[in-house]
Amino acid sequence: AINKQRLWSTLMEMAAIGGTEKGGCNRQALTELDKAGRELFIGWCEDIGCRLRVDQMGNLFLHQAGSDDTLPPVLMGSHLDTQPTGGKFDGVYGVLAGLEVLRTLNDAGITTLHPIEVAVWTNEEGARFSPAMIGSGVWSGEFDLAYGLSRTDKQGVSIGEALQQTGFAGTEPCQPFAVKAAFELHIEQGPILEAKQKPIGVVKGVQGMRWYDLIIDGQPVHAGPTPMEQRRDPFMAQCAIVSELYELAASYAPLARATFGDIKAEPGSRNTVPARLTLAVDLRHPDQQILAEMDAKFRAITKRSCEKFGLSYSIKDEWHSPAVAFNSDCVDAVRAATEHYGYDYEEMFSGAGHDSVYTSRVVPTSMIFIPCEKGISHNEAENATPEDIEAGCNVLLGAVLAMANG
Amino acid sequence: AINKQRLWSTLMEMAAIGGTEKGGCNRQALTELDKAGRELFIGWCEDIGCRLRVDQMGNLFLHQAGSDDTLPPVLMGSHLDTQPTGGKFDGVYGVLAGLEVLRTLNDAGITTLHPIEVAVWTNEEGARFSPAMIGSGVWSGEFDLAYGLSRTDKQGVSIGEALQQTGFAGTEPCQPFAVKAAFELHIEQGPILEAKQKPIGVVKGVQGMRWYDLIIDGQPVHAGPTPMEQRRDPFMAQCAIVSELYELAASYAPLARATFGDIKAEPGSRNTVPARLTLAVDLRHPDQQILAEMDAKFRAITKRSCEKFGLSYSIKDEWHSPAVAFNSDCVDAVRAATEHYGYDYEEMFSGAGHDSVYTSRVVPTSMIFIPCEKGISHNEAENATPEDIEAGCNVLLGAVLAMANG
Ligand SMILES: NC(=O)NCCC(=O)O
Ligand SMILES: NC(=O)NCCC(=O)O
Repeated sequence: AINKQRLWSTLMEMAAIGGTEKGGCNRQALTELDKAGRELFIGWCEDIGCRLRVDQMGNLFLHQAGSDDTLPPVLMGSHLDTQPTGGKFDGVYGVLAGLEVLRTLNDAGITTLHPIEVAVWTNEEGARFSPAMIGSGVWSGEFDLAYGLSRTDKQGVSIGEALQQTGFAGTEPCQPFAVKAAFELHIEQGPILEAKQKPIGVVKGVQGMRWYDLIIDGQPVHAGPTPMEQRRDPFMAQCAIVSELYELAASYAPLARATFGDIKAEPGSRNTVPARLTLAVDLRHPDQQILAEMDAKFRAITKRSCEKFGLSYSIKDEWHSPAVAFNSDCVDAVRAATEHYGYDYEEMFSGAGHDSVYTSRVVPTSMIFIPCEKGISHNEAENATPEDIEAGCNVLLGAVLAMANG
Repeated sequence: AINKQRLWSTLMEMAAIGGTEKGGCNRQALTELDKAGRELFIGWCEDIGCRLRVDQMGNLFLHQAGSDDTLPPVLMGSHLDTQPTGGKFDGVYGVLAGLEVLRTLNDAGITTLHPIEVAVWTNEEGARFSPAMIGSGVWSGEFDLAYGLSRTDKQGVSIGEALQQTGFAGTEPCQPFAVKAAFELHIEQGPILEAKQKPIGVVKGVQGMRWYDLIIDGQPVHAGPTPMEQRRDPFMAQCAIVSELYELAASYAPLARATFGDIKAEPGSRNTVPARLTLAVDLRHPDQQILAEMDAKFRAITKRSCEKFGLSYSIKDEWHSPAVAFNSDCVDAVRAATEHYGYDYEEMFSGAGHDSVYTSRVVPTSMIFIPCEKGISHNEAENATPEDIEAGCNVLLGAVLAMANG
């Protein structure tokens, strides 16, 4: 069994890098803080004899040799980057639990047959660079390397530049290699496990998600003398579209989601009708067919509203991650480990995207969830109990051992 | 009569400073470009013997001596700052027409009994620093000097700092002095004169206006796993409030105005429900009683919507400029000059705020309008005909001469 106290203090030490006043963490992808967090983690791994590989997208692989090191590794891991108003557990838990598994094996003097690796995927959050999960996305072949390196943040800095600046522009080709099994341990980021009072989620797949930039173009005019009926005001369509998209999500309740995480008005002057509004739209549903219906209705709603108010618009498809079913051998291994430790569990789907969405396309993959307080994530108040943290890591240890020796 | 050609080319020379690709002008208050525009203007005035005074808010007064220079001056003027997507005429026309009046008198060797001054008021637009008309506002006693100097732009630079940086932190006290009469010539920025095909608006007053920052606070949570009904999402209230405020304006049609010029989401991450939305709200009506009703209804709408969605909010009163009636002697002088030149005219109220709103509180003031193309302003396409530009300047000359020799 893993060392609960050590894992907890390792999580807290990492959380101090980018720690916020409200007790959360702001350590966005490929910033100086992310660099510091990665270096801390690499040091810990090297202390127990791991070897580091860094690929062209800055993904890290910490390799612990197996007794037959020519066999494909069992992969653990997740991401170290956070949201701007992020917590201490999202992603980080999956990485540091991987380290805890290696430390536990190391303490017990156990060498597995297969090697074991902990992966740290670059820019999972999609907060600094869109889309999310781009490190694992390029690795799995979903995105070209050139596309990945050229994505820019709001200041215009590209991933390629940020990799150079932080020293994580690795030389390993960013492409799939043979993997026996990949496991990602994560907080649920939703309320189901807490409500059902179960410490473990055996995750069978991930819902489908689509990201868009909706750009609405109007005519900038003076807020005072211009009669209302002569305006082409992007806000007239924006308020109608947002309200209709909430209704759309309600019509596919309870599983559909509609979220608007960001908006920008140009020129952004109080007494001028905006020339342009740019709205970030995030639509999700576990059923790929329904997500396609939501996509079509979103386009129809936007067209109707913009035409009604004499506005032109464009919908930029930022990202589409279809619904995913995980590998059944991996799911079985997680269930078996959970039963071995005697933890209560729920079989479930993930509402959030994870690096496992992309790794599952090319290597056998599944996930393990633990509850988080009130289901709250992407929030500085994100929290999980040391007991659940321990349980999840034990299940990870069990699943990894089964695969690495099987 | 004034020199139409000279006035037009003076306008075009000024418009080149901050000139945009689309033929407009972006010369925001107290930027390096505004500094360059002011210096060009000061040079032109000094060429015909004007003396410069700069006050503590950076307001400029270009003084042309009268035959009895101890008498109070007649004031002309407006502002040289523009919107980010501004045109070539808004404000600038009133300043450069003032110069053209002085040049015309100078050419004809006329010295008036009263001195004549051209005023350039700082930060009229309210685009870089809120509120609008702050230079004339401090001068008239509406705002404290400390308040004026401490207003900041989106980058946190204060007016006081920007005055130091541009060298326009003057030493003259920013306070009213005796003025015989003040006239501000301006494009209408609305469609009335063009629709009625009249070259001159005799402006009798200005509608009331209120600016607010509406801040809606929600709970940042993950866009994927968080059920819609568990969210406290500021956008749910925003779309309802904006749509109800458009209905509110429609219920007081055709004179009421509701405009949302800017909006910000924090933290502004695509897959996180915003923690906070900040919306710039601009409400106007010529009838101060109705504006008060709109203000009360705005507060009630906001309260109801935010409560419905479990959100907290605050309404920051950014600015309130009550409806204004101009001085009847000044209005009469403008009407008389218009009739003297035989121009057709409309008596009207202004939909936009102007420095005259504040000067009218302490010195006799009125305004002259000319049509602008399609009523469009705060837009790079803003336009006016050389004929209307000439007509307005002739009326200014006539009104100023009547007052300066009367
Ligand atoms: N776990 C997580 O926050 N992933 C980011 C991708 C998403 O928006 O679901
Ligand atoms: N003329 C003008 O654009 N004034 C700015 C103040 C306002 O918003 O009305």
